[in-house]
Amino acid sequence: MDGILTDGRLYFSEQGESLKVFNTLDGHGIKLLQQCGIEVVIVSGRHSAALALRAKNLGISRLQTGREDKWEALQELLENDDITIEQVACMGDDLPDLTIMCHCALAITVPNAHQSLKHHAHLCTERPGGHGAVRELADWLLQSQGHYDNIIRQYTDRS
Amino acid sequence: MDGILTDGRLYFSEQGESLKVFNTLDGHGIKLLQQCGIEVVIVSGRHSAALALRAKNLGISRLQTGREDKWEALQELLENDDITIEQVACMGDDLPDLTIMCHCALAITVPNAHQSLKHHAHLCTERPGGHGAVRELADWLLQSQGHYDNIIRQYTDRS
Amino acid sequence: MDGILTDGRLYFSEQGESLKVFNTLDGHGIKLLQQCGIEVVIVSGRHSAALALRAKNLGISRLQTGREDKWEALQELLENDDITIEQVACMGDDLPDLTIMCHCALAITVPNAHQSLKHHAHLCTERPGGHGAVRELADWLLQSQGHYDNIIRQYTDRS
Amino acid sequence: MDGILTDGRLYFSEQGESLKVFNTLDGHGIKLLQQCGIEVVIVSGRHSAALALRAKNLGISRLQTGREDKWEALQELLENDDITIEQVACMGDDLPDLTIMCHCALAITVPNAHQSLKHHAHLCTERPGGHGAVRELADWLLQSQGHYDNIIRQYTDRS
Repeated sequence: MDGILTDGRLYFSEQGESLKVFNTLDGHGIKLLQQCGIEVVIVSGRHSAALALRAKNLGISRLQTGREDKWEALQELLENDDITIEQVACMGDDLPDLTIMCHCALAITVPNAHQSLKHHAHLCTERPGGHGAVRELADWLLQSQGHYDNIIRQYTDRS
Repeated sequence: MDGILTDGRLYFSEQGESLKVFNTLDGHGIKLLQQCGIEVVIVSGRHSAALALRAKNLGISRLQTGREDKWEALQELLENDDITIEQVACMGDDLPDLTIMCHCALAITVPNAHQSLKHHAHLCTERPGGHGAVRELADWLLQSQGHYDNIIRQYTDRS
Repeated sequence: MDGILTDGRLYFSEQGESLKVFNTLDGHGIKLLQQCGIEVVIVSGRHSAALALRAKNLGISRLQTGREDKWEALQELLENDDITIEQVACMGDDLPDLTIMCHCALAITVPNAHQSLKHHAHLCTERPGGHGAVRELADWLLQSQGHYDNIIRQYTDRS
Repeated sequence: MDGILTDGRLYFSEQGESLKVFNTLDGHGIKLLQQCGIEVVIVSGRHSAALALRAKNLGISRLQTGREDKWEALQELLENDDITIEQVACMGDDLPDLTIMCHCALAITVPNAHQSLKHHAHLCTERPGGHGAVRELADWLLQSQGHYDNIIRQYTDRS
């Protein structure tokens, strides 16, 4: 979440963390993934009402927040499902993401991530977190599964 | 709108999207376009009270927000007018803008746009969205129509 | 102001422009200028309660906001004074600043300024507006007037 | 604080400074330092309720804010302790930090700092303030004291 769907900035007012800054490109990428049958889940170490709202807007129902142990949190998200960790692609930017990244099928990090992540990820996006990194992963997945030409055609073939 | 008049960041508080971040250079460019008889309209996929307010400040009365189908939305904006799509210059940054960009006279994208846009645009601005991209287009239009020297003189010939 | 003391971003909520984002380096530079007898005044095209507050914190009492004609506004600021426009150094980033910049002693612009400003300025700062551009001008003035060594010594000669 | 834990931007609303923008990487670095027995203290020239809250969240109990004389403020923080200034590593970005930086064991500055700091610091981080500069220092200290391999193993050796 922080550093991936955002650029890692934490906006504090005197009431606590008051803003989360997402990116419009990522939102569209998440919707395209869902339309093509790829589910998106979020595991975050921090609680955030703003994230809960954004997730709801994007139709993301599986969301774990305020979880120090992200590995455990992901296991819970998957346990009522026939999806295993070997079928999961994961984006992470800091040490608490390492356990998941070492076990999932495809581990992606971002240019703004902690340097240690770069030794454990399969790929690093070009765009930083909060600036379209999630959209890049969405594009890779949609292209590799052959959905992309159809998606583009949807927008260019109208008259 | 998002990604063009802004840099694509979406500021969420627990009450929803709470801020839109515009640029002072773009505002001045829009006013100069209007003074020279070029109308500016906005079509946005998202609803936003902040955008409505900014548009009002800038004297933009034709505004369509919360429209998933931007092509349809633009048609409605033009229908009581004798302007046709072949007379429109359009800026876009993501797939929902493609239909308009494939049909309008001049299609401009921005460096922060989704990569697919770059194959369908005639031009890409140097400045990213939210950092003066709209002003760049304003400058191109005003220069190509011969208004620019008069504009500069207005500010330099006083004593 | 916008584009000089800020990076030109305008933060709109549904209540209007709700935030101005200044820089800590600029604030310290303005205080140093004042300590050395160089007065700082602000002329802005926009009204802003946040700017008024920041100006007050920095001890800037001469402030003109919401003024479309900045040249006229500056004349009013100077009229009860024996300072003439030929003694003024001015920073500007867009066309409404050109009249002042063409008449003052030292006209400085910023990398994020409208391109037309660069033909009319004597100098361009390295740092963009909102990221320490005003501090750069403060440093130039303080160094050229021989104040800098004293300032540094104030902070390094303690034990 | 400003320019180190943040990028130096000061967010003003009409009620005053209303936001402080921290970074998630720095927060994790501060927690790791504390776990390894290295205490983190903050001395800031400005008062800020948002900073007080963030410090509390991070378990930083020694905090001095609104202190014009940072040298004096640090002395007070250390006086009931057997830590001397020669055992302190300090990060700073502007002139008021110079006295501490000239006397402490390790003086670190950031790329966004005032240029004068670069002549008085032992090291400059690669990442700017507010973008992980504090995490870089945390990594240097944890690596030089031999803690890093254990930290990484904590996250990668689970199954």
